[in-house]
Amino acid sequence: MKAIVPFKVINAKSRLSSLLTVEERTILARLMLQDITRTLKDSGLKVTLLTTMPFEWDAEIIVSEKDLNSALNDFLCVQDEPVMIVMADVPLISHKNVADMLNSPAEIVISPGRGGGTNVQFIRHPKKYHVDYYGASFLDHVRIAADNGLSVEVFDSFNTSSDIDEVGDLVELYIHGKGDASRYLRSITKLDTSKGRVKVVRG
Amino acid sequence: MKAIVPFKVINAKSRLSSLLTVEERTILARLMLQDITRTLKDSGLKVTLLTTMPFEWDAEIIVSEKDLNSALNDFLCVQDEPVMIVMADVPLISHKNVADMLNSPAEIVISPGRGGGTNVQFIRHPKKYHVDYYGASFLDHVRIAADNGLSVEVFDSFNTSSDIDEVGDLVELYIHGKGDASRYLRSITKLDTSKGRVKVVRG
Repeated sequence: MKAIVPFKVINAKSRLSSLLTVEERTILARLMLQDITRTLKDSGLKVTLLTTMPFEWDAEIIVSEKDLNSALNDFLCVQDEPVMIVMADVPLISHKNVADMLNSPAEIVISPGRGGGTNVQFIRHPKKYHVDYYGASFLDHVRIAADNGLSVEVFDSFNTSSDIDEVGDLVELYIHGKGDASRYLRSITKLDTSKGRVKVVRG
Repeated sequence: MKAIVPFKVINAKSRLSSLLTVEERTILARLMLQDITRTLKDSGLKVTLLTTMPFEWDAEIIVSEKDLNSALNDFLCVQDEPVMIVMADVPLISHKNVADMLNSPAEIVISPGRGGGTNVQFIRHPKKYHVDYYGASFLDHVRIAADNGLSVEVFDSFNTSSDIDEVGDLVELYIHGKGDASRYLRSITKLDTSKGRVKVVRG
């Protein structure tokens, strides 16, 4: 069974730039990708990276200059086996999360991200489905599944719903992370517990 | 088995004031409380509200002028049965979430909130435990359980991790809510899908 992870090689995680330098963001993005790749591989999935330029990684690489949706849909429409699509900024994903998605009886398992996004999808019959990652993609994916007569499970997980996209998201990785990305983040930042929600600030 | 829900009667959800009027916030807070109360009762729990002033609600009411931690710990230390503590701004909590927490083999089940918070806790032996809701309460609660030799499950749920505290959180209720609070929110606001994460804006 395959997992495909879209990964932005250059200027990754630009929305973290108010807290982290470009070098730190590059390291963090690659460590998140490493944690995710390892979890997926340990769960028995064959990992493919989807990038916009050549990149060295211990995985199959597909380079496409198309937009994300077109590149993913080009991939899905030639797959005979189930496919899991995992965003590269969901480092808390666990072996149990992957196993639970694989074991779902639904034809499409959708893990919502924050703010209407889609962080992980498990697609049992890729040729019968297509993705649309712009706008409120969670609602779009539920609709696309319904339009194609496919059963849907909304996957209820804090881990997979936590996409690390903005500075305010880093606290989830800092507090709940168990992998290399969280260790790195904890080495360069600290927690500010002074008021309201806890935040990650410079060390 | 009991559930206790702390509820702020006056000026509830003040951090939503940049989008919602005081009247709208009052209605939304009560509808969230109603959705939560109904889910807990339907799951077989006896619901108690903890408030700082007298309040009419279809539940037992405890009025305490103490701070949140002291008031909750006063309650816990006289309970012989298990207790679930549910924050009043977690309207997505489902029957399955409650059942899964009740069925956990752990002595303490902790559902993290965003930014280091604690949204729901299930405490099997309340007399052996106490709460500390300030700062990074998730980390504090894990530590308090460990200090008392109690086993912990970190409850991995998007529903229960979604506390509706800031304007940016409303989108989760708008998109994923199935109860009266979400219907009300959808009647007075709309989604802005123009860029990045989707947001709730005025209709």
